[in-house]
Amino acid sequence: MEAGKWMYRLAKELFPIGRSLTGKGVRESLQILQREIPELEICEVPSGEEVFDWTVPKEWEIMQGYIEDEDGRRVVDYADCNLHVVGYSVPVDRYVELEELLTYIHVEEGQPDVVPYVTSYYVPRYGFCMTKNQRDALKPGKYHMVIKSRLFDGVLNYAELYLPGKSDKEVLLSTYICHPSMANNELSGPVLAVQLVRWLKTMDRNLSYRLVIVPETIGSIAYLSRNLSVMKRNVIAGFVLSCVGDDRTYSYIETRNGGTLADRVMQNVLHFEFPEYKRYSFLERGSDERQYNAPGVDLPVCGFCRSKYAEYPEYHTSADDMSLISPEGLQGAFDVMQQVIMALEYNKYYKIACLCEPQLGKRGLYPTVSRKGIYDEVKKLTNFIAYADGEKDLLEISNIIRVPIKELLGNIDKLLEKGLLEEESAFGE
Amino acid sequence: MEAGKWMYRLAKELFPIGRSLTGKGVRESLQILQREIPELEICEVPSGEEVFDWTVPKEWEIMQGYIEDEDGRRVVDYADCNLHVVGYSVPVDRYVELEELLTYIHVEEGQPDVVPYVTSYYVPRYGFCMTKNQRDALKPGKYHMVIKSRLFDGVLNYAELYLPGKSDKEVLLSTYICHPSMANNELSGPVLAVQLVRWLKTMDRNLSYRLVIVPETIGSIAYLSRNLSVMKRNVIAGFVLSCVGDDRTYSYIETRNGGTLADRVMQNVLHFEFPEYKRYSFLERGSDERQYNAPGVDLPVCGFCRSKYAEYPEYHTSADDMSLISPEGLQGAFDVMQQVIMALEYNKYYKIACLCEPQLGKRGLYPTVSRKGIYDEVKKLTNFIAYADGEKDLLEISNIIRVPIKELLGNIDKLLEKGLLEEESAFGE
Amino acid sequence: MEAGKWMYRLAKELFPIGRSLTGKGVRESLQILQREIPELEICEVPSGEEVFDWTVPKEWEIMQGYIEDEDGRRVVDYADCNLHVVGYSVPVDRYVELEELLTYIHVEEGQPDVVPYVTSYYVPRYGFCMTKNQRDALKPGKYHMVIKSRLFDGVLNYAELYLPGKSDKEVLLSTYICHPSMANNELSGPVLAVQLVRWLKTMDRNLSYRLVIVPETIGSIAYLSRNLSVMKRNVIAGFVLSCVGDDRTYSYIETRNGGTLADRVMQNVLHFEFPEYKRYSFLERGSDERQYNAPGVDLPVCGFCRSKYAEYPEYHTSADDMSLISPEGLQGAFDVMQQVIMALEYNKYYKIACLCEPQLGKRGLYPTVSRKGIYDEVKKLTNFIAYADGEKDLLEISNIIRVPIKELLGNIDKLLEKGLLEEESAFGE
Repeated sequence: MEAGKWMYRLAKELFPIGRSLTGKGVRESLQILQREIPELEICEVPSGEEVFDWTVPKEWEIMQGYIEDEDGRRVVDYADCNLHVVGYSVPVDRYVELEELLTYIHVEEGQPDVVPYVTSYYVPRYGFCMTKNQRDALKPGKYHMVIKSRLFDGVLNYAELYLPGKSDKEVLLSTYICHPSMANNELSGPVLAVQLVRWLKTMDRNLSYRLVIVPETIGSIAYLSRNLSVMKRNVIAGFVLSCVGDDRTYSYIETRNGGTLADRVMQNVLHFEFPEYKRYSFLERGSDERQYNAPGVDLPVCGFCRSKYAEYPEYHTSADDMSLISPEGLQGAFDVMQQVIMALEYNKYYKIACLCEPQLGKRGLYPTVSRKGIYDEVKKLTNFIAYADGEKDLLEISNIIRVPIKELLGNIDKLLEKGLLEEESAFGE
Repeated sequence: MEAGKWMYRLAKELFPIGRSLTGKGVRESLQILQREIPELEICEVPSGEEVFDWTVPKEWEIMQGYIEDEDGRRVVDYADCNLHVVGYSVPVDRYVELEELLTYIHVEEGQPDVVPYVTSYYVPRYGFCMTKNQRDALKPGKYHMVIKSRLFDGVLNYAELYLPGKSDKEVLLSTYICHPSMANNELSGPVLAVQLVRWLKTMDRNLSYRLVIVPETIGSIAYLSRNLSVMKRNVIAGFVLSCVGDDRTYSYIETRNGGTLADRVMQNVLHFEFPEYKRYSFLERGSDERQYNAPGVDLPVCGFCRSKYAEYPEYHTSADDMSLISPEGLQGAFDVMQQVIMALEYNKYYKIACLCEPQLGKRGLYPTVSRKGIYDEVKKLTNFIAYADGEKDLLEISNIIRVPIKELLGNIDKLLEKGLLEEESAFGE
Repeated sequence: MEAGKWMYRLAKELFPIGRSLTGKGVRESLQILQREIPELEICEVPSGEEVFDWTVPKEWEIMQGYIEDEDGRRVVDYADCNLHVVGYSVPVDRYVELEELLTYIHVEEGQPDVVPYVTSYYVPRYGFCMTKNQRDALKPGKYHMVIKSRLFDGVLNYAELYLPGKSDKEVLLSTYICHPSMANNELSGPVLAVQLVRWLKTMDRNLSYRLVIVPETIGSIAYLSRNLSVMKRNVIAGFVLSCVGDDRTYSYIETRNGGTLADRVMQNVLHFEFPEYKRYSFLERGSDERQYNAPGVDLPVCGFCRSKYAEYPEYHTSADDMSLISPEGLQGAFDVMQQVIMALEYNKYYKIACLCEPQLGKRGLYPTVSRKGIYDEVKKLTNFIAYADGEKDLLEISNIIRVPIKELLGNIDKLLEKGLLEEESAFGE
């Protein structure tokens, strides 16, 4: 639980910052992450740069945003809650009657107490968000709408980090940073990613690791436009980490065509760890797995969540706050991802080094009295041996013999040590 | 419904004609169809010609057929109903006692009010068919059995029509004409085929179309013996149209090994159009799909029915009359086959023309305010794009994203027009 | 039932003999089998010989084994039941108090009336087995433990027999002989194997047959170490016969990866013969299929049982006696294995010799009057013909058309005789 508590504290520190697709909120957040893992590099892409079919938008800065009534009372104020202003709002300073004001107000009709999260990145607009109850309480009269903001040629920021291992083959960990004060659907991903890197740095790694923290969609597109060819060469599995901090279920979003190493390891670990986990088709994608799996990009990247984005009631509202996530929730996600990574690190083709079954007894690996029932005890070992034929990788063997990979690693070490096992890379190196 | 009514009227005109495997009834029927589509060519195969393992039978002509009782009352008369005489009966003129008469009489024991349809094409026989009630009412006494018919070296007739399209690759539409007055299991197929051709003639066709109207079994064998090599080269999908006029279910009979383009398009269209449709294995085949799928012939031809032959109570009885089929029933089958043909016309490999997702917003294809729920609206489009990877044909994409092909055609046109989509033939041309 | 009775009588004769992994009990048993099939060759492997990862153990001889109480009453005696002494016990002659005696006693705690079967082949030990009730009745006091036995450099025996057929391709029948007085889990296998050979000798065989009767595990390993390369070249399917004499279910243990000819034929025959049969994964293996399927050995050998070893309550106890098996039980297993062998003998690629359906009527193979219902009668034949495309072996056709192979053999013979069918070996010869 130490890791869970550490991640929760970090998320708490990041929570109040007003982030958007671009701007100082993102920069400030990335710098805090960089403080924890100094190897993290913060990069810039200038506004106006073409990235595949897209253009990097202008940088957005907001100084102030509120609605005042005739009595000068602030109905909503960006200073209180950064969800109150529609993301990327252009400036406004107008007095309007209630009827017109309402056309600029967004609420969540079905959840009267929450402020929805709304943006308009690519079409100049302004607007305000509030609770349904707030809106319904507005009385006829004049209102003053004020947004002091600017859109200017600046930069889009993202962060990356590369941890080399014995092999060039790499695992991609991708998460996003572009939402204002939201906990599960924003901060849980980056804090888990940072914690994973802290752990990976202590390991003797077989594989290399690439961490990517980007504003969603435009950020991953920009990142891919700069790094696609090396990633196509090296990435063997990737995971978009999103909404990984609550205590509810675990979820996994398949890659476009399914069946990649990323799918296989995620299914294997979640199956044993939490058999009731939810498996979503790529039709229900929504985060940066959309870009990583796009035709021609074709990276084996799946999504990992606890409650999946767009599937829990607090999603994209002010209710997605620090009370929705917990140290336990973050710790659970960290435990799963550690198992995922260990499974990838150990995923090889293993082949038993003798013909017929080896005589385990003479090596102290088998009970020496034969009687009813006693065979069950060594079944995990003998089943692993029976399927270690050099043609199935560890994931496949684990699935066939129905034993979690974490329970096989000890046996693999013993067999390797006694010369009873040969191993071969599963990545064609 | 115009098409449905038109087909029904045509079937009504054809109903009274006394057809058999060969003879003037078939010729007269084909001439009526030719009146509607003058391109239809009526062909002849002479009696005695060897067609694969078979020999074309003699032509059968029947002038008269009845049973009279001692008082000269006609018990049954071919003139009243052409099912009363066993098809291909040889001549007879005999006085017999009831006991012997009964050995020449066929009834449908389980359906006391219907006259069964019975034939004996390849062994010389004579016989009469009547209702069970008629037979059971026969009193002891002498009866006069009269059949004036002849079997002579004539011809077997069939009709064919070829509608060229941009590609040589062709779709086969096959139906049969060899039963006397039966509506669903005879006339529904030819009238649907003729209506499809009338519609196809108005289209700018990507594919070519071959219509074949033959006496069942011997006709398709004779046709294949003359046309097999061109059909093996060009037919990409074929459909035996049979029993397509009633109002009950839709059915489809798989090709021998399944999985052909014909199977895939039929499954796709029926799945969306009528999810409760019945899918029959090739083990339940019964019409000319038997020949088209025979080993060595191996054409991708499946069967399409509403109530499948041999599965509805009126099948092969006098109850399969004009009241069993309807304009609505025929129209429904026409609608399905139109969708089948459109799906084949548009079935290509599509590939999105940029890396990562295209920016739909700048092309007016995407909502510009981002908020909870709004993504559903464009899901059909974005899902099509996500799977347009140049490796799946349109049928596969439709199945994956669970959208009927007819709802995708508009999007495909828009994307092609905006240069966002590349297309490639799915037929290896 | 003649065969069943014959097998039962032979098992009864073998039952009292005190067998173990090695020794005169095995030799005596094999000689009795050799009396029935003189071609059976009894072979020797010397103690100490290395066979793959194993070493052939010393030969074990037991002259006497009992426990006496203070009054000289024998508590248990090997002479009464050869399960009373732990297999491969080293000699002992000691007086001990009850407390110590109990540490040498094995019982089946859950079944108070049976003597368990216990061995210690590879670690020198001694011990006694008795019923739980016997043990619980023992009173405090001194006991005399006596085992007169010796372990010496001798031989391990096994028997083999090769029956040549037209093809070098062979079927392996393997069973074991190494347990003392147990009926189902010992003698049912050898007597079935011997009966199958007696039947096979009378047949005009397409395939060759190899019978192997070995002490379990070490015997099959020793056999494979001498015969692996010829077996890898020729064995197309093999069956470990074990526990085939009771009257309960039929069971089959899959090969390691499934899908071999052995799996396919076993599934096909059992599916039609006894649809409720039990199919066990290779994870539940336990007999010599473990060695035949080991990585690198890779022979297509599955297990065949009625009640599977380790799955029935009498297994490895004194309750597995002659009352557990029956002539009917043995006969049933013989019938299944006969069907398995016939299916293998006839398993070829068949191809119909004409294009389109053949005209069966002119060959007397089809009813000549066509009417509702009549087609069902010839469906087995026409369905076989429809799928005889030269690309599916007989097993696959049988599965597709859902007709047991034994019901197809007559039709195949007729079609071959009439020149309507071509056949091709399914074994790549």
